[in-house]
Amino acid sequence: MKRIKLVVAYDGTNYHGWQLQPGAATIEQMLNEALTGLLGEPIAVIGASRTDAGVHALGNVAVFDTRHRMPGEKIRFALNHRLPADIRVQSSCQVPDDWHPRKHPCIKTYEYRILNREVELPQERLYAAFCRFPVDVERMRQGAAFLVGEHDFKSFCNVRTQAETTVRHIYDIQVERDGKGIITIRIRGNGFLYNMVRIIAGTLLKTGMGQMEPEGVRRALEARDRQAAGPTAPAMGLTLAGIEYT
Amino acid sequence: MKRIKLVVAYDGTNYHGWQLQPGAATIEQMLNEALTGLLGEPIAVIGASRTDAGVHALGNVAVFDTRHRMPGEKIRFALNHRLPADIRVQSSCQVPDDWHPRKHPCIKTYEYRILNREVELPQERLYAAFCRFPVDVERMRQGAAFLVGEHDFKSFCNVRTQAETTVRHIYDIQVERDGKGIITIRIRGNGFLYNMVRIIAGTLLKTGMGQMEPEGVRRALEARDRQAAGPTAPAMGLTLAGIEYT
Repeated sequence: MKRIKLVVAYDGTNYHGWQLQPGAATIEQMLNEALTGLLGEPIAVIGASRTDAGVHALGNVAVFDTRHRMPGEKIRFALNHRLPADIRVQSSCQVPDDWHPRKHPCIKTYEYRILNREVELPQERLYAAFCRFPVDVERMRQGAAFLVGEHDFKSFCNVRTQAETTVRHIYDIQVERDGKGIITIRIRGNGFLYNMVRIIAGTLLKTGMGQMEPEGVRRALEARDRQAAGPTAPAMGLTLAGIEYT
Repeated sequence: MKRIKLVVAYDGTNYHGWQLQPGAATIEQMLNEALTGLLGEPIAVIGASRTDAGVHALGNVAVFDTRHRMPGEKIRFALNHRLPADIRVQSSCQVPDDWHPRKHPCIKTYEYRILNREVELPQERLYAAFCRFPVDVERMRQGAAFLVGEHDFKSFCNVRTQAETTVRHIYDIQVERDGKGIITIRIRGNGFLYNMVRIIAGTLLKTGMGQMEPEGVRRALEARDRQAAGPTAPAMGLTLAGIEYT
């Protein structure tokens, strides 16, 4: 028996998120089915991040155990032949038998993309939220600065969050606009609460649009009340860019 | 009666190209149906570029005539409400009654995108051709340089081309690689033959992969024979970026 780690990229558009759900296609289900077919034994992966419906990933992480003799690094290639084109395993390798993707310290990087121009672009409709109103990126950066560091992010998580603690550490938030009108919010942290990145994105966008002062982000944080923060930005703008285990 | 010019962006993935075809969804058909519904009279657009199935556009151009009183620049907004999300009119305006999108001198800009890395990325599968082998962008530039200028591009068009002359003028070809492994070939010219940009892309990619010398592009041009050039690169990598009328 050996444990294999996968780094998985996917376009979340056609899936009901990562986690297994009866009667709905999910990333976890696709991986389990492809691996079970490939290795000839029932496989159940354990994922690092259970992303929501419509959320994308460049580098989510999953592990599974197998008795198959195929070398860990060969699994990627064979597995991609069995997966639909909207899921692609980027790498596979053997890890220690007790290695668990949710029980080791890590830094997760998320990207939230907003298309900010007068008219929508069809090519971005599945990968960016759309905002036709003027957005001041510098105001977004000023608001974002209040979120960096270790804080109680109770205001920035879905009220259904079951986490024991709502304290998290954000190492860095960058906000950039490119020449095509895409604003990218890039957030690195040691873990994120349910909907946390989407609520941060919705709050910073509100700040950038002038509907909230940058200082309001600090006040929202201090309030420890979901109502004090901005709206939850839509799922399709969000990508789990990567997970570094430290 | 007045003539309206539209600048149209679309994701070509789900369409059988621009041109009307019985029993198949096309961009032209979607525009005609939406405009006929909006303006209450039968509308038939005339397009500048009849792009192939799977090809995308950021700025294709179309015109139509209408008796409706709606101001030209208001049509865009109302029309987008009636179009599917993968087609978005970027602008609309009135033009002189005899203005025709294929009968005025123009510069067309096409972009061809190639994802060049070890593993496919799901988010690029509909917008870039994929090449897992090493590609030397400098060799592509050297090959491209032979194509700039006025030449007979008979080797670089589909044998079914019905054009009277195969002489065209390419003003500029740029080849760039970004940090994510996307190679973009950007071509500006006064007109392009059937499949011309895709054959240029296929030939430059072959050059970049070392399967053809940069000098081979010049020899292919001189041969005036489709067999002398490289393969036709796949449709989904191609985007009609824009048309400037001069």
